[in-house]
Amino acid sequence: MSGVKGRVPFPLVRPLLAEGLGSALLAALVVGSGIAAQQLSDDVGLQLLENAAATAAGLFAIILMFGPVSGAHFNPVVSLADAAFGGLPWRTAAAYVPVQIVGCVAGAVLANAMFAQPAVSVSGTERATGPHLLAEVVATAGLVLVIFSLARSGRAATAPAAVAAYIGAAYWFTSSTSFANPAITVGRMFSDTFAGIAPSSAPAFIAAQLVGGAVGVALIAVLYPRLTPAQAA
Amino acid sequence: MSGVKGRVPFPLVRPLLAEGLGSALLAALVVGSGIAAQQLSDDVGLQLLENAAATAAGLFAIILMFGPVSGAHFNPVVSLADAAFGGLPWRTAAAYVPVQIVGCVAGAVLANAMFAQPAVSVSGTERATGPHLLAEVVATAGLVLVIFSLARSGRAATAPAAVAAYIGAAYWFTSSTSFANPAITVGRMFSDTFAGIAPSSAPAFIAAQLVGGAVGVALIAVLYPRLTPAQAA
Amino acid sequence: MSGVKGRVPFPLVRPLLAEGLGSALLAALVVGSGIAAQQLSDDVGLQLLENAAATAAGLFAIILMFGPVSGAHFNPVVSLADAAFGGLPWRTAAAYVPVQIVGCVAGAVLANAMFAQPAVSVSGTERATGPHLLAEVVATAGLVLVIFSLARSGRAATAPAAVAAYIGAAYWFTSSTSFANPAITVGRMFSDTFAGIAPSSAPAFIAAQLVGGAVGVALIAVLYPRLTPAQAA
Amino acid sequence: MSGVKGRVPFPLVRPLLAEGLGSALLAALVVGSGIAAQQLSDDVGLQLLENAAATAAGLFAIILMFGPVSGAHFNPVVSLADAAFGGLPWRTAAAYVPVQIVGCVAGAVLANAMFAQPAVSVSGTERATGPHLLAEVVATAGLVLVIFSLARSGRAATAPAAVAAYIGAAYWFTSSTSFANPAITVGRMFSDTFAGIAPSSAPAFIAAQLVGGAVGVALIAVLYPRLTPAQAA
Repeated sequence: MSGVKGRVPFPLVRPLLAEGLGSALLAALVVGSGIAAQQLSDDVGLQLLENAAATAAGLFAIILMFGPVSGAHFNPVVSLADAAFGGLPWRTAAAYVPVQIVGCVAGAVLANAMFAQPAVSVSGTERATGPHLLAEVVATAGLVLVIFSLARSGRAATAPAAVAAYIGAAYWFTSSTSFANPAITVGRMFSDTFAGIAPSSAPAFIAAQLVGGAVGVALIAVLYPRLTPAQAA
Repeated sequence: MSGVKGRVPFPLVRPLLAEGLGSALLAALVVGSGIAAQQLSDDVGLQLLENAAATAAGLFAIILMFGPVSGAHFNPVVSLADAAFGGLPWRTAAAYVPVQIVGCVAGAVLANAMFAQPAVSVSGTERATGPHLLAEVVATAGLVLVIFSLARSGRAATAPAAVAAYIGAAYWFTSSTSFANPAITVGRMFSDTFAGIAPSSAPAFIAAQLVGGAVGVALIAVLYPRLTPAQAA
Repeated sequence: MSGVKGRVPFPLVRPLLAEGLGSALLAALVVGSGIAAQQLSDDVGLQLLENAAATAAGLFAIILMFGPVSGAHFNPVVSLADAAFGGLPWRTAAAYVPVQIVGCVAGAVLANAMFAQPAVSVSGTERATGPHLLAEVVATAGLVLVIFSLARSGRAATAPAAVAAYIGAAYWFTSSTSFANPAITVGRMFSDTFAGIAPSSAPAFIAAQLVGGAVGVALIAVLYPRLTPAQAA
Repeated sequence: MSGVKGRVPFPLVRPLLAEGLGSALLAALVVGSGIAAQQLSDDVGLQLLENAAATAAGLFAIILMFGPVSGAHFNPVVSLADAAFGGLPWRTAAAYVPVQIVGCVAGAVLANAMFAQPAVSVSGTERATGPHLLAEVVATAGLVLVIFSLARSGRAATAPAAVAAYIGAAYWFTSSTSFANPAITVGRMFSDTFAGIAPSSAPAFIAAQLVGGAVGVALIAVLYPRLTPAQAA
C-alpha cells in the first residue's frame, strides 16, 4: 500500500490524481450501489447485501487500479497510519487527505448524477449513537490491522483482496455498516440515499474512526515489531 | 491481456476462434443468467444480484479459458485500447471486432435456446437516457483502467479476477448496469429478456462506451507512463 | 489437476480414497445446501443463489483438499478427458469412475442423514428436455475448457478457483443448473430434494455430458496444441 | 498455519495476543453479522446467506491479519491437530485453547454491545440433535482436511481463502450451520441472537467437533503421509 515512496518523489501529481480518482470511484461505488439497491429491492437486509457485495468487488478492482501509483489509500486514516509507520512522508499524507475528501464528495455527486438524482442532496440519516461509534472504532482498527499486517509481512500483494473482503464483512458485523474512513464519511453526507449520513453525525463518526486508527496502529506495533519481510515470509 | 502478440503472428485462426467462442460464452452467460433470474425470483434487485454474481464468476472463468490464446478481450473497446497502447496490431484489432460481435449475437441465441425461448427475439427495453449514458462512460473508462493498469505494472495474472469483480460491481454502481462493451450491447439486442436492450438504444450506448474507452486510455497514459514492469513490481 | 501421474504409480489406494472422499463431500455439498436452501427460503431464485454460492465456495475447498493426491476430478468426464490428453493412464481413469459414482451416492445419503431426511429417497424431478440437454452439453464443454486450458498453460494452481467460479456461474447461465458430471448426476438421483434428478432423466443427462466433454476436448486440442507451459507462461 | 514455530519460542505474548484478538474478532463477526441479518431481513434463508457471506469474507481477512504471528487458529481443534502433527508444541497448544475461548466470549459480548443488545444474554437455541451432531463431525473433519492438506503440500498461502470459503459453504451444506470450533461454540452461548446456541447443546457440539477433528487428523495422516513440500509442489 506504499508503492509511492521513493519512486516518484517529485512531483506528486500522479499520486494525487490517483488518490482523487480512486476516492471518487470509491464514493460512486458505495453511494451508487446503495441507490440501486434501495430502488430495486424491498428487503432492507437484501439492500445491504447488494450494497456490500458491490462495494467489496468494486473496491478490490479500484485498489488494483491505483495501488502502484499512490498506494490506493482513499482514506485519511490509512494515509496517517502509513505516515506513522514511516511508509509515507507526513507531507505527502497531508497532501493526500484533502484530495481524498474532495474525491469522495465528487464521487457522491457522480453517483447522484448517474442515478438521475439531484446532483447534491444532504443526507438526513442520523447515525451517531454510542453503539455505532463503538462499531466505527472496531471497524477502523480492523482495517488498519488488515492493511499493515500484510504490508509488514511481505504480503502486500494480497491487500486488495483482503481489504475488499474485510470491508464487505464489516458492513455486516458492525452496527454502523463500517464507514471506517473520514473521507467517505464526508462524501456520504452529500447524497440523501441509502448510504448517506447526516452532517450532524459525521464529526462523531470521524472522531471514532481516528480513535480506531490509533488503536490499530498500536496493535500493529505490538504484533509486528520490526518484522522484516524475510522473517514473516 | 495481450498474450497474442509475437507468439502466433500467422495465422489468426486460433485467436479469432478464441475471441468468437469467448464472446459467445460471455453473451450466453449474461443473457442466460438474466433469464434464469427473471424466471425464478420476484424481487428485481435479487434478479440483478443473481445476474451480477453469475456474470462475475463466469467471466473470471471465461477470461482464464482464452487469455493465453487471444488475450480474452471479447470487447471492441478493449481491443482498440490495446492497439492504441501498441499491445495489439491494429490489423488484428480490426479482425477481432467483427468476430466479437458475431460471437455475442450467437451467444444470445444460444441462451435463448437453452431456456426454451424463441431463438431470436428483439428486445424492447429502452435504456438510452442521459444518466445511463453517463454511466456507460464511467463504466467503460473504469474497465479500461482496470485492465491496463494491471497490464502496465506486471500484474496481468490478476486481470481475470479484477475484471470479473469490476463488472460485477459495475452492474450495481452504474445506473445502466454497465454494458461497457459494444459487442455485448449488440448481442443483447437479440433477446427480449432481463438483460436485453432495444436496438434504438444501442447506438447511444456504444457511442458512450467509445467515449469512456478514450477517457480510460487517456488516464492510463497519464497514470502509467512508460512504466516498466520492474518499476511497478 | 493431474497430480497423480508418476508420483504414486502403485498402489492407487490414496488417489482412489481421495476421489471417493472428495466425490462424497461434493455430493453432500450440492445436495445438502440444496436441502437447506429449500427449507429456509421461499423464493426459488434465492434458493438457487444459496445453492450455487455454497457449491462454488465448497468446491474450491474440496479441490484444494484432494488435488495433490488424485487430481481432484470427482467427475468421470474430467478423468476421461485427462486420459485422452495423456495426463492420466486409461487404467487409472477406469478405476476412478466407479469410485466417483459410489462416492457421490454416499455423499447424497450423508446429506439426507445430516438433514434428518430418509437416508435414501428417489428423486421425482424430471429434467430431461431438449433445452436442458443442450445446456448440459454447453456446461460440460465449458468445464473441460476451464480445466484443461489452465493445465495446458502452466496455470493449474488457478484451477480450484476457476472451476468453482465456473460451476457457480453455470448453475445460472444454463437452464439445467449445470450438473456437468455423470457421477453427481447418479448421486443426485438418491435425494428427492432441491438438487435431485429423476432416474428417468439421468441417462439423457449423462449422454449430453459425454457429448459436451468430447466437444471440450476437441476445442482444447485446437486452441492449445502442443503448447508447453513455457510458451504459455 | 504454523507460523509460530521456531520464530518466537519465547515469550508467547504476541502469539497469545494474536489468538485472543483474532478469536474475539471472529466471534464478533459471526454473532454481529447474525444480529444484523436477523434485524434487517425477513427470510431465514436470506439471513443465513448474509451471515455466511459476511463470515467467509471476514474470516479471510482475520486469518491474514494474525497468521504470521500465531498461525491464526482461533480454534482448539486446529491447535490440537497442529500439535498432533508436530507443528505446534503441546505446551503452546495448551496455552492457546483458553485464550481462544476467552477471546470468543469477549467477541460475542462486543457484538452485543455494537448492536445495542444486553452485554450478555444466554442463548436459548437448542441445537443438539443427532443429525446436527453428525453434521458437526463432518464439518470439523472437513475443516481439518482443508487446513492440513494445504499445510502439508506447500500451499499454506492459500489457507486463508480456502478456510474462509469452506466455512461459508459449511454454513449451508451441514444442517448445524457448521460451528466446527469449540471456542466459538462457547462464545455463541453468550448471545441470545441468530447465531446463538443454548448451553445445554454446547457439550454435545464440542464432543462432536473433537470427534470430527480426530477423523480429519486420521485422514490427513493417510492421504498426506510424510509428504514433503517439494514432493507435493
